Amino acid sequence: MAKNVQDKSIDPATRAMLLEADRAGIETAWDRFEKQQPQCGFGMLGVCCRNCNMGPCRIDPFGEGPDRGVCGATADIIVARNLLRMIAAGAAAHSDHARDAVMTFKEMAEGKARGYQIKDGAKLAALAAEYGISTEDRSPEEVALDLANLLLSEFGKQTGPIQFTRRAPAKRQKVWEAAGIEPRGIDREIVECMHRTHMGVDNDPVHLLLHGLRTSIADGWGGSMIATEVQDVLFGTPTPTTSESNLGVLKADEVNIIVHGHEPILSEMIVAAAEDPEMIALAEKMGAKGISVSGICCTGNEVLMRHGVPTAGNFLQQELAVITGAVEAMVVDVQCVMPALGNLAGCYHTKFISTSPKAEFPGALRMEFREDEALEIAKDIVRAAVENYPNRDRARVNIPKEKTGCMVGFSAEAILGALGGTPKPLIDAIVSGAVRGVGAVVGCNNPKVQHDFGHINLVRELIKNDVLVVTTGCNAIACAKAGLLQPEAAKEAGPGLQAVCEALAVPPVLHMGSCVDISRILVLAAAIADHLGVDISDLPAAGAAPEWMSEKAVSIGAYVIASGVYTVLGTVPPVLGSPEVTDVLTKGTEGVVGASFAVEPDPFKAAKLMIEKIAEKREGLGLGA
Amino acid sequence: MAKNVQDKSIDPATRAMLLEADRAGIETAWDRFEKQQPQCGFGMLGVCCRNCNMGPCRIDPFGEGPDRGVCGATADIIVARNLLRMIAAGAAAHSDHARDAVMTFKEMAEGKARGYQIKDGAKLAALAAEYGISTEDRSPEEVALDLANLLLSEFGKQTGPIQFTRRAPAKRQKVWEAAGIEPRGIDREIVECMHRTHMGVDNDPVHLLLHGLRTSIADGWGGSMIATEVQDVLFGTPTPTTSESNLGVLKADEVNIIVHGHEPILSEMIVAAAEDPEMIALAEKMGAKGISVSGICCTGNEVLMRHGVPTAGNFLQQELAVITGAVEAMVVDVQCVMPALGNLAGCYHTKFISTSPKAEFPGALRMEFREDEALEIAKDIVRAAVENYPNRDRARVNIPKEKTGCMVGFSAEAILGALGGTPKPLIDAIVSGAVRGVGAVVGCNNPKVQHDFGHINLVRELIKNDVLVVTTGCNAIACAKAGLLQPEAAKEAGPGLQAVCEALAVPPVLHMGSCVDISRILVLAAAIADHLGVDISDLPAAGAAPEWMSEKAVSIGAYVIASGVYTVLGTVPPVLGSPEVTDVLTKGTEGVVGASFAVEPDPFKAAKLMIEKIAEKREGLGLGA
Repeated sequence: MAKNVQDKSIDPATRAMLLEADRAGIETAWDRFEKQQPQCGFGMLGVCCRNCNMGPCRIDPFGEGPDRGVCGATADIIVARNLLRMIAAGAAAHSDHARDAVMTFKEMAEGKARGYQIKDGAKLAALAAEYGISTEDRSPEEVALDLANLLLSEFGKQTGPIQFTRRAPAKRQKVWEAAGIEPRGIDREIVECMHRTHMGVDNDPVHLLLHGLRTSIADGWGGSMIATEVQDVLFGTPTPTTSESNLGVLKADEVNIIVHGHEPILSEMIVAAAEDPEMIALAEKMGAKGISVSGICCTGNEVLMRHGVPTAGNFLQQELAVITGAVEAMVVDVQCVMPALGNLAGCYHTKFISTSPKAEFPGALRMEFREDEALEIAKDIVRAAVENYPNRDRARVNIPKEKTGCMVGFSAEAILGALGGTPKPLIDAIVSGAVRGVGAVVGCNNPKVQHDFGHINLVRELIKNDVLVVTTGCNAIACAKAGLLQPEAAKEAGPGLQAVCEALAVPPVLHMGSCVDISRILVLAAAIADHLGVDISDLPAAGAAPEWMSEKAVSIGAYVIASGVYTVLGTVPPVLGSPEVTDVLTKGTEGVVGASFAVEPDPFKAAKLMIEKIAEKREGLGLGA
Repeated sequence: MAKNVQDKSIDPATRAMLLEADRAGIETAWDRFEKQQPQCGFGMLGVCCRNCNMGPCRIDPFGEGPDRGVCGATADIIVARNLLRMIAAGAAAHSDHARDAVMTFKEMAEGKARGYQIKDGAKLAALAAEYGISTEDRSPEEVALDLANLLLSEFGKQTGPIQFTRRAPAKRQKVWEAAGIEPRGIDREIVECMHRTHMGVDNDPVHLLLHGLRTSIADGWGGSMIATEVQDVLFGTPTPTTSESNLGVLKADEVNIIVHGHEPILSEMIVAAAEDPEMIALAEKMGAKGISVSGICCTGNEVLMRHGVPTAGNFLQQELAVITGAVEAMVVDVQCVMPALGNLAGCYHTKFISTSPKAEFPGALRMEFREDEALEIAKDIVRAAVENYPNRDRARVNIPKEKTGCMVGFSAEAILGALGGTPKPLIDAIVSGAVRGVGAVVGCNNPKVQHDFGHINLVRELIKNDVLVVTTGCNAIACAKAGLLQPEAAKEAGPGLQAVCEALAVPPVLHMGSCVDISRILVLAAAIADHLGVDISDLPAAGAAPEWMSEKAVSIGAYVIASGVYTVLGTVPPVLGSPEVTDVLTKGTEGVVGASFAVEPDPFKAAKLMIEKIAEKREGLGLGA
């Protein structure tokens, strides 16, 4: 078992909890993954179609069985349609999250969402200017209401452009226009994905993939960016702060509440409620020394970035947190929440509390969240957790010792601020070659690969080669746990990057936020490109998602290449059953949007691919490879 | 082979062409279906999940293998999620069609879509009143522009209600409100389906299915109804007219153009262009006696309903039409167009012409349609067909002799008009028991069952038992071919229905239009319910889709039960892998929306189920079973 556990994760805390799970006879995602072996080869290759009830149809990848479905769809068509649906789901997840954020913002502006307020007035003013909203002699709330309505209209509009796409360099906007992939409204593009992939509609792989790029742009430069910006106005734009990471942040003598999912709307209130003296007094009455909130996945990243709330771990650690036996409440909203948590929580004293009107889970205690009584509901949730503390079975508590310090909060604004308000110092460092370029490393965990192995080794290779890394999501949490988000990690970097980091007292890996905050990376890339008067595709930059698993990651990958950034995937997308789609994604898109995908499970090789791409781009800019 | 052909279809024209295909060594959907055997059992049961890249996962239906996916999703969750995505795709197809119709309507109002005009001013006025648009001292175009903008807003609105849902009886609206399934905006609900089914979001089967009903209502009482209404304003509300059906409508000595797909926007123009003297002269120059347009699928139904353009056949006949060797052009827009047509057309002289910006096909000649030059493009298409006439290989022409007369055009307005402007005469006939009730029989073809067998036998059983049948889509075409859309078919009806039909000189099976025109059935049902002061679920009515195959049919089925009408499916939906979902769909929804599904492949048994349900509803109304 010990050997087996080593194979599953490189993270010591995760290994410890997997051993504990084994001792306790508790099943985790790794076990379920093993039970699913062998996984369906048709599905993995993308050649299985369930889009109508004449099927399901399957194309024989060896050419010995059927080469088309009942309707006549080939492997190329089926793979492209399936991929488009993945993009649609991913873009929908981000955008629907953004919609809820804007709805809350609007209710705040209308005075209906007590507990919320405008925390970043400067960003509100900047957004108002961007949208042409007058601010003269108007209250922030009046301005916010206009802005909320205009942001809401981005979801429902029928003709483009989506305002934030105007943030892309002019050259990039022209690329989109020329390719016919400038998005109209966010929801419209997603709905059109579903229409096009319906039986007997779009049956041309390239045509389908182009619409996928269009939809993904509506995510990256639309939904995701709206989520980030509105959340910044409501909760504050992150600035550098320090915190801790990994399961060791759980407290043996305090009430532990974990916020998990993706939206800060509720978790912000949980953080506030947990600091309420009434709640702390109640916790003490229950025998606890206090209330400790920590996060998992992107809800965790949101409160980590803004409040330094510790992160207990990334995606594959959600079950392990419960298995510590020390979690009074796992409070979840939407996305990447394993339904397995219900059964699991039932084996411990943990209350698994679901809160989103659109996400229910088996075995969950339902405490539905409403913006109009946000703080009251958050207090109810915290109270439920606190009152659960006496139920903790001390004999079963097993909190791993591992916790690592981290510096987080590198919003684009914070980075530019640290550089003196302009990307010039960073550009100078890139021009001089001290920093070779920028690597954006993001994405999930996936039991198909060793947990955190791809994340950490890829990032280490990049910084060692003087590539500054920006990170979000579960990669950022992996980096935090590995100590790479500390300024001291600069000593792991190459000499050029090390010097730059030491001069600025920043880590060589900058945590830019949650998965929707990849929009921050786009904004930063646009700022650098604009400063140089070039397109994003000209920059010495590359992206990677070493352990991706979600459909959101597919949409992200698509908008990153559509924005002109070469992207390396560490787990294999279900496209290999189509030579044409594989070729388009790994080569063809280069001629359309100036970037393409590569698939490379080995993080060392992936780093090499990124470094080579960065060298190629440096040469293109005349900077010397 | 002859025996084999008998098993495939009950339609003699189809059988003849299948023999011809066999002789010519041409592959059809039936052959591809056979090659797909055995189809994947996991997919057929709905227990295969490809919603993230930890998978694909499969649940072992026999309980011997994995009982949950990597994330912990059970068969119940996986089946519900998959079904929700089918509804999303179906609703997207209908609604995106509606969006395009409204866009054309808007361009017409703005004077940008030459060739289009307001054909039904009365309906425009009625819709304007419904939307509270002033008509006083305003041109129809001004009114139309306001209406177009309000209709467009139904797709993008973020909060409900969708105006046409107010057409449902007040009791029905209350049912939706109580169940929390009143839709907000059309696109929003579809996007939320995709969000909820993303990994780690909604994991409660009932919660998922309720959102499916909400989304489907946004289709039936939203997108589909908008499509119908706008198309009526633009092209005229159908009134009873006669025509012919089946492949025998193709002409041996004329240029044959087939319009296929779902949208009348282009096909209306094709019909007009084909009547252009210049085109007819050109056809004569090419040696043809004229130009003959006929239809397949719902594009065919649209022009059949409004212009009496003959229908060449339903879904499974699209390839057979080409195999006649007599089709100069198969002009397609969107939905239910087999990509196999490209290869097939290459084996004949047929030009396979794709026209929609959102649907490309391998092997198609692309002549993209734009509303601003609609008639010109339609003429180009007709010209391409006419100029192709000399390429017809007479030795390969094999047009089946079968063609059957039909009376079509029974819009809700036409039916109410025939009854003297009120549903009262029909209600009186129902009260007296002369007509037992109404059966709505709709849907596709599917090679899983004998072509047209379910359609025709179910309809025959119903009318024999004095159940008036309303029909749309591929069922309507099957009925046309079988002679059931002729007033003479009244003699196949029971004595009560026969007398009513003879008195009104109408067939016992009323063709109400294309698949989006199932909205006409809803309007008619609402009118009858309102007249009686009851809910739709109280009416002696039942629905059926004996040979359904498309995701649109799933959305339709969902909104029909959500509207309160019991519905029998003839092919098995991919849900049987979940006991819970199966139970909810066949029983549980009864308590929520007053209707549920049944699955019954045998059309005689299906008719019995419907007749029993009608009897039950009659008793409920005190009419005597």
